[in-house]
Amino acid sequence: MVQFSAQLDAGFSALSDRTRRGILERLGRGDASITDLAAKFDMTLTGMKKHVHILEDAGLVTTEKVGRVRTCKLGPRRLEDESTWIAKYREMLEARYDRLEAFLERTKGDES
Amino acid sequence: MVQFSAQLDAGFSALSDRTRRGILERLGRGDASITDLAAKFDMTLTGMKKHVHILEDAGLVTTEKVGRVRTCKLGPRRLEDESTWIAKYREMLEARYDRLEAFLERTKGDES
Repeated sequence: MVQFSAQLDAGFSALSDRTRRGILERLGRGDASITDLAAKFDMTLTGMKKHVHILEDAGLVTTEKVGRVRTCKLGPRRLEDESTWIAKYREMLEARYDRLEAFLERTKGDES
Repeated sequence: MVQFSAQLDAGFSALSDRTRRGILERLGRGDASITDLAAKFDMTLTGMKKHVHILEDAGLVTTEKVGRVRTCKLGPRRLEDESTWIAKYREMLEARYDRLEAFLERTKGDES
C-alpha cells in the first residue's frame, strides 16, 4: 500500500470539507465560474478562491481564465489511489473479522 | 449524494494524514497498544494518543483499556460513505468526459 504519499494527503484533505465536496458535486453538473460558485455557496469571492485553489492543488478541479472570467471544471484526477486505499482498508477490516470469527469458532469447539 | 455530512468530514480528515493511514495499515496486521504504535512510528506517547483519538472519533479505530494497557483495533466503520462518495465523483468525471467527447464528435460532423 502506498503509505507515504503527498497525493493521498492532498486528496483526502481536499475531500474533508463539505463545501469542497459540494463544489465538486456542482461541477459534476457542468462547468462554473468562481463568481457562480461563490453565489451558490453564499461565500465571498476570496473564500471561494481558497477552496478552489485547494481542489486545484489536489488535481480535482482545473481552472481556465478567459478574459476576466475563471471557469472551473472537474478533474483531471480520478481519485484512483484514494479509492484503492479505502478498498484495502475494507479488506483489512473483513480479514480482521474473519480471524475473530475463526477464533470464536475454535473457542466454542474447546468448550463442547 | 450526502453533501452535508459531519461523518464524511471526519472520515476524510482522519485519512488525510500519512501517519494515521500507516497506523490503520499496522492495525490491519493485528491489534497493537498505544506504546507499540508510538515506538513503531517513532513518536511520543502524547503525539500517538492524538492520532489515535482522531481515528477513534472517525470510527476507524476502537480502543480498550485493560489494566494499564490501551489496545487499539481496526473498525468498526467500513468507510462505506467515503467509498460511495468517491465512486460518485468518478461517475461524474466519466459523464463529463462523455459529454465532451459527444460535443467533439458533433463538432467534427459540422466540419466535414
